[in-house]
Amino acid sequence: MLSKNFLKYINALQQKKHRKLHEAFLVEGEKSVAELLASTTYQASHVLGTAEFLQTHRSAQGASGIEWIEASPAELQKAGTFKTAQQALAIAKIPAAPSSPTFPLQQWVLALDGVNDPGNLGTLIRIADWYGFADLICSPDTVDVYNPKTISASMGSFLRVRVHYAALESYLDQCPQPVLGAYLEGESVHTARLPQAGVLVMGSEAHGIRPALSARITQKVTIPRFGAAESLNVAVATAILCDRIRQQHP
Amino acid sequence: MLSKNFLKYINALQQKKHRKLHEAFLVEGEKSVAELLASTTYQASHVLGTAEFLQTHRSAQGASGIEWIEASPAELQKAGTFKTAQQALAIAKIPAAPSSPTFPLQQWVLALDGVNDPGNLGTLIRIADWYGFADLICSPDTVDVYNPKTISASMGSFLRVRVHYAALESYLDQCPQPVLGAYLEGESVHTARLPQAGVLVMGSEAHGIRPALSARITQKVTIPRFGAAESLNVAVATAILCDRIRQQHP
Repeated sequence: MLSKNFLKYINALQQKKHRKLHEAFLVEGEKSVAELLASTTYQASHVLGTAEFLQTHRSAQGASGIEWIEASPAELQKAGTFKTAQQALAIAKIPAAPSSPTFPLQQWVLALDGVNDPGNLGTLIRIADWYGFADLICSPDTVDVYNPKTISASMGSFLRVRVHYAALESYLDQCPQPVLGAYLEGESVHTARLPQAGVLVMGSEAHGIRPALSARITQKVTIPRFGAAESLNVAVATAILCDRIRQQHP
Repeated sequence: MLSKNFLKYINALQQKKHRKLHEAFLVEGEKSVAELLASTTYQASHVLGTAEFLQTHRSAQGASGIEWIEASPAELQKAGTFKTAQQALAIAKIPAAPSSPTFPLQQWVLALDGVNDPGNLGTLIRIADWYGFADLICSPDTVDVYNPKTISASMGSFLRVRVHYAALESYLDQCPQPVLGAYLEGESVHTARLPQAGVLVMGSEAHGIRPALSARITQKVTIPRFGAAESLNVAVATAILCDRIRQQHP
């Protein structure tokens, strides 16, 4: 049985201010918790799981400072944000912010300007991971990476992609590499020649890339439209651009 | 003021069995409701809106059998599924199922095998609309297109893309066109030559394309991976494939 107070603590971690206060966040679902336990960059403080989950994973990992707590699938559902019964939930420590974002040469970096849907951010982290983008730079008003919806939508990719929060203006000002930006009226990505490495800037669905950043964009690109939808989801658009980049520079 | 009974009716439309019973579904948000009012394929029965919304849209549309009901943003939020205050919400009539899906020559059709996340289905409808795919065929176990999350994620595109539910086995058996399927071990879409028209089959994220359909797939394609994520979201993968198709056959 989970104590009332402990449940309250777990529930509180759904809110950013409590995550900040406790320097902790939730990782939900059997698969993500198992990946967390295997990670060397993130550390779990508590693992709640069914008897079966604990049996498999506790022995494999040893003690290493983790508190293991047995809970039923129904209790786990109550503790977390998922709508169905779960096998596991972990509380993980928020690590110190990664060192200032740098400009990895010959690498692509994804920069997000004000993306505020937590599910979208999670999907974007998963896309960065698929295409081998190791760094993601978010403007300070981008949604919190430790939001439970972001963590779960990233499907474990939050463990592999470094997410930085930084003012994009000064980041791009210092950037020696080409800066690609997605616009509605840019060069078609079906014909554009894309750089071998650089920064790919994506704006929010509602506002696009902020005008203040436009002067820092060295190449404006567009995904051609063949029907009537007004726009594409930001994660969808990002994936199409990443795919184009990797086709030209595998 | 909305009556308790009417609120109860609106809330009930969040469930498929009530939508079926009443042949009605919800359209939420100012923009989607405005697009619904301009649509010739869908008909609203009730429009709830703020005084401002009604003033703009009632006069523009005339009476035409719609019941117009003034409601505050807070009431609209209570009535619908959105988490923030809204300007408008409509109840629309579910039209008779579109005629049996055909095989439009020289056109692409998107087929979904068991996609069960309502938000994903909405995003897929939006992608089909962007790329000019007029028809979407869903296996019978695909989530309901009139789910409020699907309607809202489609961003109005549900008004332009015909969504059919049909057994994919027999649909594909009768299909005279090439059938493209997304697999983890197919030909790379970065080098594959894609047909000019056909059916693009996408499976669910959890199970992929059902083995029973595999024999009907004439070309298996894969999106190359450059990092460590295990998979891509089904909407993201679909968009990448649609984009590849349209680049080769604009």
